[in-house]
Amino acid sequence: MSLNTFGHLFRVTTWGESHGPALGAVVDGCPPGVEIDEAMLQHWLDRRKPGQNRFTTQRREPDAVRILSGVFEGRTTGTPIQLMIENTDQRSKDYSQIAARFRPGHADITYWQKYGIRDPRGGGRSSARETAARVAAGGVARAVLRHLLPDLKITGYMVQMGRLKADRDRFDMAEIERNPFWCPDANAAAIWAAHLDELRKSGNSVGAVIEVVAQGVPPGLGAPVYGKLDTDLAAAMMSINAVKGVEIGAGMGAAELTGIENADEITMGPDGGPVYGSNHAGGILGGISTGQDVVVRFAVKPTSSILTPRRTITVTGEETEIVTKGRHDPCVGIRAVPVGEAMMACVILDHLLLDRAQTGGRRGVIGPQARADSDAFPGSSRET
Amino acid sequence: MSLNTFGHLFRVTTWGESHGPALGAVVDGCPPGVEIDEAMLQHWLDRRKPGQNRFTTQRREPDAVRILSGVFEGRTTGTPIQLMIENTDQRSKDYSQIAARFRPGHADITYWQKYGIRDPRGGGRSSARETAARVAAGGVARAVLRHLLPDLKITGYMVQMGRLKADRDRFDMAEIERNPFWCPDANAAAIWAAHLDELRKSGNSVGAVIEVVAQGVPPGLGAPVYGKLDTDLAAAMMSINAVKGVEIGAGMGAAELTGIENADEITMGPDGGPVYGSNHAGGILGGISTGQDVVVRFAVKPTSSILTPRRTITVTGEETEIVTKGRHDPCVGIRAVPVGEAMMACVILDHLLLDRAQTGGRRGVIGPQARADSDAFPGSSRET
Amino acid sequence: MSLNTFGHLFRVTTWGESHGPALGAVVDGCPPGVEIDEAMLQHWLDRRKPGQNRFTTQRREPDAVRILSGVFEGRTTGTPIQLMIENTDQRSKDYSQIAARFRPGHADITYWQKYGIRDPRGGGRSSARETAARVAAGGVARAVLRHLLPDLKITGYMVQMGRLKADRDRFDMAEIERNPFWCPDANAAAIWAAHLDELRKSGNSVGAVIEVVAQGVPPGLGAPVYGKLDTDLAAAMMSINAVKGVEIGAGMGAAELTGIENADEITMGPDGGPVYGSNHAGGILGGISTGQDVVVRFAVKPTSSILTPRRTITVTGEETEIVTKGRHDPCVGIRAVPVGEAMMACVILDHLLLDRAQTGGRRGVIGPQARADSDAFPGSSRET
Amino acid sequence: MSLNTFGHLFRVTTWGESHGPALGAVVDGCPPGVEIDEAMLQHWLDRRKPGQNRFTTQRREPDAVRILSGVFEGRTTGTPIQLMIENTDQRSKDYSQIAARFRPGHADITYWQKYGIRDPRGGGRSSARETAARVAAGGVARAVLRHLLPDLKITGYMVQMGRLKADRDRFDMAEIERNPFWCPDANAAAIWAAHLDELRKSGNSVGAVIEVVAQGVPPGLGAPVYGKLDTDLAAAMMSINAVKGVEIGAGMGAAELTGIENADEITMGPDGGPVYGSNHAGGILGGISTGQDVVVRFAVKPTSSILTPRRTITVTGEETEIVTKGRHDPCVGIRAVPVGEAMMACVILDHLLLDRAQTGGRRGVIGPQARADSDAFPGSSRET
Repeated sequence: MSLNTFGHLFRVTTWGESHGPALGAVVDGCPPGVEIDEAMLQHWLDRRKPGQNRFTTQRREPDAVRILSGVFEGRTTGTPIQLMIENTDQRSKDYSQIAARFRPGHADITYWQKYGIRDPRGGGRSSARETAARVAAGGVARAVLRHLLPDLKITGYMVQMGRLKADRDRFDMAEIERNPFWCPDANAAAIWAAHLDELRKSGNSVGAVIEVVAQGVPPGLGAPVYGKLDTDLAAAMMSINAVKGVEIGAGMGAAELTGIENADEITMGPDGGPVYGSNHAGGILGGISTGQDVVVRFAVKPTSSILTPRRTITVTGEETEIVTKGRHDPCVGIRAVPVGEAMMACVILDHLLLDRAQTGGRRGVIGPQARADSDAFPGSSRET
Repeated sequence: MSLNTFGHLFRVTTWGESHGPALGAVVDGCPPGVEIDEAMLQHWLDRRKPGQNRFTTQRREPDAVRILSGVFEGRTTGTPIQLMIENTDQRSKDYSQIAARFRPGHADITYWQKYGIRDPRGGGRSSARETAARVAAGGVARAVLRHLLPDLKITGYMVQMGRLKADRDRFDMAEIERNPFWCPDANAAAIWAAHLDELRKSGNSVGAVIEVVAQGVPPGLGAPVYGKLDTDLAAAMMSINAVKGVEIGAGMGAAELTGIENADEITMGPDGGPVYGSNHAGGILGGISTGQDVVVRFAVKPTSSILTPRRTITVTGEETEIVTKGRHDPCVGIRAVPVGEAMMACVILDHLLLDRAQTGGRRGVIGPQARADSDAFPGSSRET
Repeated sequence: MSLNTFGHLFRVTTWGESHGPALGAVVDGCPPGVEIDEAMLQHWLDRRKPGQNRFTTQRREPDAVRILSGVFEGRTTGTPIQLMIENTDQRSKDYSQIAARFRPGHADITYWQKYGIRDPRGGGRSSARETAARVAAGGVARAVLRHLLPDLKITGYMVQMGRLKADRDRFDMAEIERNPFWCPDANAAAIWAAHLDELRKSGNSVGAVIEVVAQGVPPGLGAPVYGKLDTDLAAAMMSINAVKGVEIGAGMGAAELTGIENADEITMGPDGGPVYGSNHAGGILGGISTGQDVVVRFAVKPTSSILTPRRTITVTGEETEIVTKGRHDPCVGIRAVPVGEAMMACVILDHLLLDRAQTGGRRGVIGPQARADSDAFPGSSRET
Repeated sequence: MSLNTFGHLFRVTTWGESHGPALGAVVDGCPPGVEIDEAMLQHWLDRRKPGQNRFTTQRREPDAVRILSGVFEGRTTGTPIQLMIENTDQRSKDYSQIAARFRPGHADITYWQKYGIRDPRGGGRSSARETAARVAAGGVARAVLRHLLPDLKITGYMVQMGRLKADRDRFDMAEIERNPFWCPDANAAAIWAAHLDELRKSGNSVGAVIEVVAQGVPPGLGAPVYGKLDTDLAAAMMSINAVKGVEIGAGMGAAELTGIENADEITMGPDGGPVYGSNHAGGILGGISTGQDVVVRFAVKPTSSILTPRRTITVTGEETEIVTKGRHDPCVGIRAVPVGEAMMACVILDHLLLDRAQTGGRRGVIGPQARADSDAFPGSSRET
């Protein structure tokens, strides 16, 4: 991870500003021979695309992704994959006023203080448009994972808007695609719709909590002690715009548990492998996956661009007020759902590659044959 | 960040197991000429040392740190600093039973599944003893920061044990050093003491929430979009043993705020710089520090080693129960306080070095002279 | 350095194939506020551009570079700079024959063996066209260095073609721009022209040695022991297509020297700094620059694409012969000159940033005041 | 690669000074389950050990290596392996005189200029003693390679001392272990012995060229375009103390070849794979191994510590002379042979791990079945 690059081996470098000519991602280290085309990536980008319903920004961006390198005759070649998305809806309005004032809750002031220069058009590099590049890269990761982990399923959804929590007893994963909030609780989605309409009309916005679950992650991904799977997931999610908290499994609530409650007891499953009585660990112990569902949650702060005036200062040090007009999501958390899924896909693939580098993808056996297998573990040169 | 290394430029590589001959850290990239000696580091290690009161493990480890390289005549030379802590209290008991069973909530099973081999003595590499090396490295970071950021103050404390939260209205930072919980609310500390005694006697344990605040961080540390200050703080804290959630500023609670509430309004301070009306951002906007307090919280799960039997399996696949005897902290969160402080110190120094690499440590000016300064910004070759 | 990324802090990731739609580089970590525009970069690309005289490939590529991000109103913003060069002269010929056979001396066979797939059009990723992206990135580095090291001068030139060496006694740096070989010895250039005409007509090609000198590098750049300035220069030059050897200072010839000959004796110069009696070290001692000229040489093998038939095999394992028709440089070393200069610029800037990160850009003093300064060295917090 | 760390996945961080209490290496990312013990590593260290004959320094260091972590019951656990070598023969002499003057050809002056402080005892971090840590790490690499590439054979030897070259027609690899110069030409070794005696008596020293060959490297290791196998080998060798040039295959001599001469023609071998008519490429095409011998050479400059006075300056800026007394190798290239072998082992293992991460260790097939296999390449999820 270095400034604008994410990942150990499946490395994603994103570039581009909100209102520049284009933005994109270079994906390096991708396994070769994987079928990929622009339509496959577009599928994921379309889920994140703005303007799809009244709860997301009305900016009209087709977000059409082009593959400029690294793919030949429909398959990855193992060389860097450049994914480019041209910005088409860059309204050529005067931005001198926004350039002169710092919007509270935005990176305007910190970019200025750090760099002494900033691209004020649409937030420049700090715009959530950057996440389109993540979703495109996540599409590449998924294309690879389809081969390497065919049983993997990544599902993101919103579990809370403002103080309104979805009810886990009502969860029906089929509902996720049926409401504009990616919410598995249809009832909550209806309530949120009314709530959000009201907030929007009053020139306000609201935060949200997103949960992303990966099913079918094999045991053994991750590594002590700074390359933990949860370390990288926390970094991945915290790097998304407006995220202020990340949880694995029981998350912050783990503090409220006792050791007796928190112990995910282990028994032998019908097919011979370990089975857990609960999943407070969120599928990760000691930084390494257990084979249970990997469960991550993150909180997205309310959209900072609101129609209600807030106090701020100008570049030249005068106190003033600002109202952020324009086309903004009243709950930016909604569109963070496909972004969270994309980051999950990238992290899991990255750790899969890291794991097969170090261990060759073999697994320590649990069962009567354990001892013998362990003796044989290192010696084989199967991979070469 | 790569497996056992943390940091971009101030790079800490830790090594060692709980019951091996020694453990430690190599610190690479440290600025030269900084006064440092073993006593300075020992000061921080002593705060984390086990066996200091009845609420922490009774293992007796002096945790004496030795500097093996990188320091000459009491000052850093700019070359790698090897910090070694010998393990002295490695009870030579038979560990065959613990080697054969997987303790729920521990990394026993995942290490086995990943590597096909594990050092079962005291948890091996997954033991919280690894955090001693972090504290030693954090001591080096603080020695450097004393020069580069003389006004920096890092303070860690516990704000919640189980369901019992400390009361922010009662906070007195002077109390932190006066109770075994590093709690700024003396009243809460007294209640926690009684609660923890009870839990310990009943063979149980409990989780906790730790808060770490850095005051005096200048604006401009951090970088878009994967090298954000909060991204690295989240990774740093999540990499600590037993941590399941990380929050910046309002944290998970940001989801419950509206945009109007969340906006940290900006005015001009008496000394000419920006002043904020609140700090929901936790001192970080767009991944870059604002100059406000940097506020991080993390949840530590309850100690998994408890005296109450839990169901588990053996390596050879038999179902059984396990009771983890031995010397264990009933609330491992207590000793995470100095560890969180150490990680904060390392991340801030690392980003300070990153920042002066890219910007030369200059800052964009806010005030009447803003325009002129910005024009001159890049040109000067002041640093060379 | 990781697959397609070069540099510690000034990080260049190149992407693209010879006959894909485009190729380019993302430059991350660039200092902010530096004046840059496409014309400045084009200047350097034009020096490398094919088809400029009869000794380079007749492929007609304008190699027009576009800046897609990271620059606002003519200055760098500190965010990633995407440099894109569209491929315009991709002759849409049938490449089935070249796809079926492995050209000796080319990466055809190794890409196939490694990836099981390759883009055969013009060599795909292994084409020397990739170096256009390096030259563009080098242009960015130079724009920064103009501010940070205004006295820096980087000069590349050819010193040997085949067995014909230029004569150092005849060197006149003004000649470099006057002949198609970037040769400072006009006499040698004339001889080479005749020689190369002959080789080309006979369907042959030839190797070359390039020297790149950086004047005005301050002392103190580089670091022990794997981040040495010469380590990174060796990697940078060896990563250029067709390079088979890299030398610093006396280079391979250092083996022939005695210790007495090799010692670069030190005296005090008229302006108080150290002056060296010779420069066998090539400006680098212990991996750190001395302040003398940094001198690097590298050997480029003869172009592998020749009109003389060579034995080879097909993908399906049949023995055959191959003649590589098309538009190829008979001495690919010629166009490596601007590439070597670009790599030198990138490495020096990268180490300049690394150095000011660790030391703040200060220098240990040599002279009567040495002791006092050394005491004061670390303490100042000048940078923050 | 970052300051004191080498490698992408098999990462070696060395630490320690010549006259500090100890030096060593942390090896991170090592595959688990590999048999290893101190005696195995000692075998390699003993080959590098000083004082073994009259041509190497008479410093008496047992160079006894201790494994402090990462190995349990004789096998690697996948966690960091700390290798420590205590310095025992640190003569407690007064070093004030050496501290005040800069030895020509040494890093004394550059460390001072960069860091403003240096450990003058025996050269501190810039001492060739650091290479002991590399040899220990190389021993770990070899233990892993014994399993992953059982047919791999790494052989280093000296091919030139001063102007005296060994005769390849006389090469007998069995001779390497029979003379103090690791020279496969017994005749040359005898001549070198006389020559070196003479040089030593006259207070002089001499350079050397070392060649390291790796046989049994499979095709497919390495990657475009900055992660090339030759890029990393060049960096590895150039990072060794006193090395001034690195060559792959034909090396600098490639400049003298024509394309016809340089083409390593390909035919089908008796066992179905490609066979090359020559190896000017040194086993690497486009940065990726061909399956031929990987051939690297490097030049080591003459020992800078000589008994003949040389002109230099003091820290306080006075001109003076210096004679470097003490126990120094008259030809430091001799002891670079095992170091070069160690670096080769580390690089090959590192690239083997990188390759199996990205490709799963599969290989594109050459032969009648090529087409079908290539179609199937990516899909299988064999590794997981």
